Amino acid sequence: MSKQTSVAPAIVQRIKESFAAQGLMRHLGAELAELQPGKASIRLPYREELTQHMGFFHAGATSAIADAAGGYAGITLFPQGSSILTVEYKLNLVAPAKGEWLEAVAKVIRSGRTLTVCQLEVFAVQDEDKTLVAVGQQTLIRVEDS
Amino acid sequence: MSKQTSVAPAIVQRIKESFAAQGLMRHLGAELAELQPGKASIRLPYREELTQHMGFFHAGATSAIADAAGGYAGITLFPQGSSILTVEYKLNLVAPAKGEWLEAVAKVIRSGRTLTVCQLEVFAVQDEDKTLVAVGQQTLIRVEDS
Amino acid sequence: MSKQTSVAPAIVQRIKESFAAQGLMRHLGAELAELQPGKASIRLPYREELTQHMGFFHAGATSAIADAAGGYAGITLFPQGSSILTVEYKLNLVAPAKGEWLEAVAKVIRSGRTLTVCQLEVFAVQDEDKTLVAVGQQTLIRVEDS
Amino acid sequence: MSKQTSVAPAIVQRIKESFAAQGLMRHLGAELAELQPGKASIRLPYREELTQHMGFFHAGATSAIADAAGGYAGITLFPQGSSILTVEYKLNLVAPAKGEWLEAVAKVIRSGRTLTVCQLEVFAVQDEDKTLVAVGQQTLIRVEDS
Repeated sequence: MSKQTSVAPAIVQRIKESFAAQGLMRHLGAELAELQPGKASIRLPYREELTQHMGFFHAGATSAIADAAGGYAGITLFPQGSSILTVEYKLNLVAPAKGEWLEAVAKVIRSGRTLTVCQLEVFAVQDEDKTLVAVGQQTLIRVEDS
Repeated sequence: MSKQTSVAPAIVQRIKESFAAQGLMRHLGAELAELQPGKASIRLPYREELTQHMGFFHAGATSAIADAAGGYAGITLFPQGSSILTVEYKLNLVAPAKGEWLEAVAKVIRSGRTLTVCQLEVFAVQDEDKTLVAVGQQTLIRVEDS
Repeated sequence: MSKQTSVAPAIVQRIKESFAAQGLMRHLGAELAELQPGKASIRLPYREELTQHMGFFHAGATSAIADAAGGYAGITLFPQGSSILTVEYKLNLVAPAKGEWLEAVAKVIRSGRTLTVCQLEVFAVQDEDKTLVAVGQQTLIRVEDS
Repeated sequence: MSKQTSVAPAIVQRIKESFAAQGLMRHLGAELAELQPGKASIRLPYREELTQHMGFFHAGATSAIADAAGGYAGITLFPQGSSILTVEYKLNLVAPAKGEWLEAVAKVIRSGRTLTVCQLEVFAVQDEDKTLVAVGQQTLIRVEDS
């Protein structure tokens, strides 16, 4: 999607501040793992506070990091002074989210002037195994800072 | 969707136990608010731990209760001995999730032998005002208890 | 969604011209059935040219009229000089599309300055029976005429 | 998704018969272009009968071939005697569908016992240029032949 090879330091700084300001990401224990132009990933270590009734990661936790990763992937391709909102997303939960941590990886498929479309993938990682547990698609809208 | 006028006590009991066993619902502070045949709602009071960077409810919190409400709405129409998994859902975030609490309301649109489809709505409630903040659609699959 | 009680004649005219200019709607045999503020419906009579391998309406036909109805529902709430594009939609096919005709009904759930969200429903009609065969959700973007 | 290197001739035969039996595919002028294990593609040459009001391919045509390609991609991984139905799909229309033909490419992301999830892409091809015009995700359910 991009010829840039790294994200501008000012954008990285902005994303880190935004992430730190998100009460929910902190409350879940999520960590920003990687930023590249058009790509972002977030890790979420296992805790009992994140489970559904069978003891696996709750789909709500899976969704939260998938959606957040998508937003940051979008921002990596923006000039400064632009922010982003999720318009909508769709997520298929394809396997039980069972592992030591989850890793949400979002990639920009199309970055337009107003709208950005991302592909979302969430993996559960256990020892050496990495299993795809969710796959989705997200639409974001760019908002100019006021 | 249903001619039943109330959910069987054994199903209500089962849903309450499932809800209580979900670490994430407890961690977020969500409460099961209403159960009717083909309908379930969940409330989520505001806390700083649930916010995004602008101080509103995070889309991840909105999604978590929307998805959970859908699952319980589906279970209300099932015989005992059946459980449910989310296959996928799609959510449009249509307004900032700003208020004293969120209320997710899920209604079964179609309950088939294997698959159930729900409509999902999330409202932000502030004083007397109730604003639609998210609207979605969810597919669930019925799983027999082993 | 709207306090208007009818769609302005200039907008009705514009929608009819747009519909007439759509080669696919004509090729399928679709007819614009109803326009109200925030609502549009399209009918599609059965023909062998619209079937899948079992002789029912093909999901592609169902989708085409659902998507088109959504766009027109959105336009009914716009001032003149605005056009609309589908950003994305999601459709659940909930029953075999079997009948004398299909009727797609789209209703605006939220009409914003830039984005509009519609609920989509498609019914199969046979004699007196009307069966819900598809239900979906659509995001549209407003484009100013140049 | 699969270690098979080619689709079994009986399955190819079945898919070709199914495609030929679809009135809509014939009416649109669509052609089955490629079958591999877990992958299918369909081509749709431009005709005025497939257009929207601006003369590009109508989203309904784009959707119809995307959805159909997904179903066939799913079937390539099934044993004989199984059929498939679309449960739901979501499609983002990311660029005007303008070209000599469309090519829908579907790939199985996850093939389960009951449910299959596919990624859908549609390209517009003009001379040497191939532009992504739609991207989506689809859920299919396997049905045993009776």
